[in-house]
Amino acid sequence: MRSRIIPALLCCLVPLSLLASPLSEKVRQHRVAHEQELVAEYREFLTIPNVDADQTNVRRNAEFLRAMMIRRGLAAELLEGKTSATNPAVFAEVRVPGATRTIMFYAHYDGQPVNPKEWATGLDPWNPVFLTASLAKGGKIVDGWKPGDAINPAWRLNGRASADDKAGVFSILNAYDALVKTGGRPTVNVKFIFEGEEETGSPHLGEIMELHRAKLQSDLWIICDGSRHVSGRKLVVFGVRGDVNMNLTAYGAKRPLHSGNFGNFAPNPALRLVSLLASMKDDNGKVLIKGFYDDYVQFSESERIAVKEASFTDTALLQELGLKQGEVPGRSLLDGFELPTLNINGIASANVGKTATNVIPSTARVTLDLRVVLGIDWRRQVGRVTEHMQAQGWHVIDREPTDAERAQFAKLIKVEFEPGYNAQRTPLSLPIAQAVIAAVQSTTTEPVMKLPTAGGSLPLSIIVETLGVNVITVPVANYDNNQHAENENMRVDYLWEGMETFAALMTMP
Amino acid sequence: MRSRIIPALLCCLVPLSLLASPLSEKVRQHRVAHEQELVAEYREFLTIPNVDADQTNVRRNAEFLRAMMIRRGLAAELLEGKTSATNPAVFAEVRVPGATRTIMFYAHYDGQPVNPKEWATGLDPWNPVFLTASLAKGGKIVDGWKPGDAINPAWRLNGRASADDKAGVFSILNAYDALVKTGGRPTVNVKFIFEGEEETGSPHLGEIMELHRAKLQSDLWIICDGSRHVSGRKLVVFGVRGDVNMNLTAYGAKRPLHSGNFGNFAPNPALRLVSLLASMKDDNGKVLIKGFYDDYVQFSESERIAVKEASFTDTALLQELGLKQGEVPGRSLLDGFELPTLNINGIASANVGKTATNVIPSTARVTLDLRVVLGIDWRRQVGRVTEHMQAQGWHVIDREPTDAERAQFAKLIKVEFEPGYNAQRTPLSLPIAQAVIAAVQSTTTEPVMKLPTAGGSLPLSIIVETLGVNVITVPVANYDNNQHAENENMRVDYLWEGMETFAALMTMP
Repeated sequence: MRSRIIPALLCCLVPLSLLASPLSEKVRQHRVAHEQELVAEYREFLTIPNVDADQTNVRRNAEFLRAMMIRRGLAAELLEGKTSATNPAVFAEVRVPGATRTIMFYAHYDGQPVNPKEWATGLDPWNPVFLTASLAKGGKIVDGWKPGDAINPAWRLNGRASADDKAGVFSILNAYDALVKTGGRPTVNVKFIFEGEEETGSPHLGEIMELHRAKLQSDLWIICDGSRHVSGRKLVVFGVRGDVNMNLTAYGAKRPLHSGNFGNFAPNPALRLVSLLASMKDDNGKVLIKGFYDDYVQFSESERIAVKEASFTDTALLQELGLKQGEVPGRSLLDGFELPTLNINGIASANVGKTATNVIPSTARVTLDLRVVLGIDWRRQVGRVTEHMQAQGWHVIDREPTDAERAQFAKLIKVEFEPGYNAQRTPLSLPIAQAVIAAVQSTTTEPVMKLPTAGGSLPLSIIVETLGVNVITVPVANYDNNQHAENENMRVDYLWEGMETFAALMTMP
Repeated sequence: MRSRIIPALLCCLVPLSLLASPLSEKVRQHRVAHEQELVAEYREFLTIPNVDADQTNVRRNAEFLRAMMIRRGLAAELLEGKTSATNPAVFAEVRVPGATRTIMFYAHYDGQPVNPKEWATGLDPWNPVFLTASLAKGGKIVDGWKPGDAINPAWRLNGRASADDKAGVFSILNAYDALVKTGGRPTVNVKFIFEGEEETGSPHLGEIMELHRAKLQSDLWIICDGSRHVSGRKLVVFGVRGDVNMNLTAYGAKRPLHSGNFGNFAPNPALRLVSLLASMKDDNGKVLIKGFYDDYVQFSESERIAVKEASFTDTALLQELGLKQGEVPGRSLLDGFELPTLNINGIASANVGKTATNVIPSTARVTLDLRVVLGIDWRRQVGRVTEHMQAQGWHVIDREPTDAERAQFAKLIKVEFEPGYNAQRTPLSLPIAQAVIAAVQSTTTEPVMKLPTAGGSLPLSIIVETLGVNVITVPVANYDNNQHAENENMRVDYLWEGMETFAALMTMP
């Protein structure tokens, strides 16, 4: 009995720092000495609104970021697109004598739109504060904290982009700085690129790559985005799903109608839309749209093994999410990554609850999110959804209906979408892929998890197609960071650990 | 040919005033002489917000209304409920020597909630302005109009409650005033009651009637609410549907989830809710909930005849509404009044369009409106909808789910409703019903339309059940007044004609 207990106790008693690499230890010591400055700068960065459509503020972010890089000795510059419609990327490079590899480090500094009313009391997307823990676990705002006060690494920093993806910028830039300031240097040529349009699907990343092709060449892009393994273990991800959003608007009468005076007479566009949506996916999570799963590339044997290693019983996750079971009972979270998705991001028609009125609404709207996987082109998937609507008797238009169309078609629906992008997967077997895994493993005593694809999306296919390079993702955020939603937050200790991870990646053999 | 043209021309050339009764003519002359004062007072009345939950402002309305009545020589008083939770009714009475009948004139001074963002540019629910015509027909704000300027009777007055139902208050009080000021007097004992809670289903009207039973006794209540016939003809309505709203909230995970990271794993409550809603009603407008149409009392033969007289081809209405066909192709608007309804008043989950984010929402909400007809109890109808949800595998709760419930039930739905009320119908054959029809007919050369029931709802069953009186409705608003929605508006000429109608009703033989 004793022999089994003692090693377990030892494992708890030995500080993790003693088990980490000398490089990680150096980075950590540097961080401890400069924690207050790092946090002060990061909080200021988070106060600048970074929603893509708000171009003035997005550019303020870019300028702030450039200044951060210049403070770290980097000759940073803004990479502009062809017109002012493009939010700039921020770029810098460090050439290392004798280096044989060039690695591009990527993060994005833009964030998802916010609806401040949905954020918890006291939380403001643009005023970062510390929480004692996640809100779901009873976390509260750390009252009275002021710059200079100690920062508990178990806290979380709350704010839009605190995790997605200014945390990537933080990890990459401060890893480099810590490395250099502690007397080290990269072993590879290091390039930095921070994008400002990722959250709208990187509409101009291809354009920026075309315009600045020479600068952006490298052997590998390492993306810092997304979240670590649910277990908290570090993670390397070799691919992403592609993505496209569709906005649908169903039309009823030209004006909202009294639900008594016109009830049983005027068609209700909300009812017609829910009927359409219900026809798209069954209660077992299966999409019923014709051809939706055609063409997808199944996981290879080595990819299946990696997924199996990274798998976990869903029990704790389901409990934490407050769910009895997943959408498809028995299918694990990771197994679902192999398949495309159809999600309702949001639906709206007139008002509900206290502001509801007794009306037959004039329109009903839904935003769909379609994730695509290797083998499925996003344009084709949009086409399949559109054909499904037509097969259900809907007349599809791409703008407001005319009176003539209203008179001709009983079921009118507007379909809008911005360009999407396809999935990407880098084979795990490549030597550079194995080198990345080894570098991340050097910073932790826990086994590093590998995923052939993330559930989420990044426009990596654009990079692969335009520059012909490999792409691998190394996330730093906690999996429960609420990215893309209200109350987004980032664990402080994961910010610190992100610095160690990226310092190791900059010193790969 | 000539003989066919001349009468048509004559009809257009002869002022309508020459065809109306001497009483109507007197009321009209009085109105023309006092138009500016009437409009000034009415516009001021409309500026006071009257949403039920805003009790402070609702009481300001009540006080304003009492002052209006006092200015007309009426000893008006507020009828309070048991607690301050009740918005007061405003009451007065006029005893007429020799009168054998007592008639209560009812309107309500509260209004539906507003979402000012949904109102057209330049229109404000609480700042009444004139429009040249309905917005749907290209109406514009009458720029530069100021008190004292001429008022075109073809204009509309825009603002919350301009039609529903402060127009009722306007018609009743100004009919009485014009009658008295022109040397006439009522032939019946006249009582006035103006309610302040109709738009939330008159939750305390029964209480007020209990507390003030003696004052509220009469032979007949005449309700001024709703809208005239689609043709513009005057209308008498002998019943209403009952009504109850249900608010449903479907639950997914405890927090919104990234649609990529959790897509194909976490159930989407919006998708589950649309599936439930789609199961409630088919594409042909038939409600599929078990027993939904049971027990309803069909129209009698005389009621069917009245409906047939009031019927009209739907072609122009459909065109005006921008619809190819009704919910049930071939079923007319009025035929649908015989049946109960199931309507989606509004639906909401996360955000759509430009503010949408790639999330699996944590909740999805819908507000349903159930209209009931004679023979169907609203409580029973709510029960049928609830049983339908249970039959579809939903666990129904009446508050937020506990962790234990989340762990136990895959499909959780919160059901909330405020008390509703039942339908009411007064037989057309009663002598007092015939007297009302005759009085309204005396004010117009066009045939008066009769409807056994309105499509809409008023809590008339409460009056009938509590006081044992008959109830008949005489509407004054234009049918396209946008009541309960944005851009509510009232035709100016219909305000004027409402005065004439109610003066005739106060002088019934």
